[in-house]
Amino acid sequence: MDIAKTNRLSLVEQIVSQIESLIESGAWSVGSRIPPELELMQQLDVSRNTLREAIRALVHAGLLQTRQGSGTYVCSSSTLGAALQKRIQKANLIEILEVRHALEKEAARLAAIRRNQNDLENIQTYLEACLAAAEHNDSEAYVEADIQLHKAIAVAAHNSMLMDLYEQMSVPLHESVHNLSEMTCHTDFHHHVHWKLVDAIKEQNPEQAIEAVTEYIEQFMEIL
Amino acid sequence: MDIAKTNRLSLVEQIVSQIESLIESGAWSVGSRIPPELELMQQLDVSRNTLREAIRALVHAGLLQTRQGSGTYVCSSSTLGAALQKRIQKANLIEILEVRHALEKEAARLAAIRRNQNDLENIQTYLEACLAAAEHNDSEAYVEADIQLHKAIAVAAHNSMLMDLYEQMSVPLHESVHNLSEMTCHTDFHHHVHWKLVDAIKEQNPEQAIEAVTEYIEQFMEIL
Repeated sequence: MDIAKTNRLSLVEQIVSQIESLIESGAWSVGSRIPPELELMQQLDVSRNTLREAIRALVHAGLLQTRQGSGTYVCSSSTLGAALQKRIQKANLIEILEVRHALEKEAARLAAIRRNQNDLENIQTYLEACLAAAEHNDSEAYVEADIQLHKAIAVAAHNSMLMDLYEQMSVPLHESVHNLSEMTCHTDFHHHVHWKLVDAIKEQNPEQAIEAVTEYIEQFMEIL
Repeated sequence: MDIAKTNRLSLVEQIVSQIESLIESGAWSVGSRIPPELELMQQLDVSRNTLREAIRALVHAGLLQTRQGSGTYVCSSSTLGAALQKRIQKANLIEILEVRHALEKEAARLAAIRRNQNDLENIQTYLEACLAAAEHNDSEAYVEADIQLHKAIAVAAHNSMLMDLYEQMSVPLHESVHNLSEMTCHTDFHHHVHWKLVDAIKEQNPEQAIEAVTEYIEQFMEIL
């Protein structure tokens, strides 16, 4: 490989990184169409060939998707997310659940230790949204509030790597166990565990936080 | 994008998948040089352009690495592994440790439940290797046996997704805390925790397994 080619490869690599950053920062959001080729060539100051190769690399990585006649769309928020989604497709539901629960227990434990006032307010908001949805028998709203509550707890753990993995492991579950969640969400048991978990985080009691998550998981596994 | 181009793109995608399989199955091992271009073109029955684009996509994904004047080498065993390594470079050591420990606790718990006779024999072998290395004051051998012991426990959990993530999270730690491990490995405490963990897995006591890992982690974090 000659030097000119090496330089072009590393330039493609740079453009790939720049586009990755645009996606990971949310400037290009999942589901949106990326700007037209000419605009990007100017914006990133690169040739058509370099841009195309960078785009193709990102398509292979699972971050972008080219739809015939319609353009190129963002389909994953990070390289890690795309790779995890691919790997998850080869795993079975129990495997995914076990990994997610491992991360969930650690998130609850760390949230109990590290939560700040802002975290507590977010958690409280979504706990109340859960209760309100249950009162109105609104399953759709309950599942959404439940997801947000657990996400707020993961955020309160203040570990971005744990948060990333947890969110990625949750995506396939939201889809495949959506109906199951709807079935179980309204029970008194579920409310009890939510209260126990949020209370543990408030009181900075990591042991109780782990206990609450474990109770929740065991019931979930039993139903499964 | 015209149809000819779409077909070529999906052909590249196929070749990428085929090469990924060769790497993930271990047929092409990490560190090895991939076969020459002409041989691969024949083996995979593709044109030079298609092969080159597939190789470039795999270089961008972090599975292959092109070394000037020397050829292309396998540098990661899976797409997920490569993506995790990239993400890990942006994380701090505490974040990585916390995620790894979350996976380690779950692995120990599941190993206590699911281990079979073969798992127990492997675990026993590496535990004895740890003890032998400690007796001979052989730090290098101790660290290696310690890694193998923990890997054997993760295997005994019988969850391939958990195993994959756990192994990937361990790579940067082996490098950055190698010296630290050497310092702590020989202590009586470390032996005590190993015995407790292996005993819990033998006796199928998941609570004791988690307890042993937690003790181990807490000591580790304290030193850090």
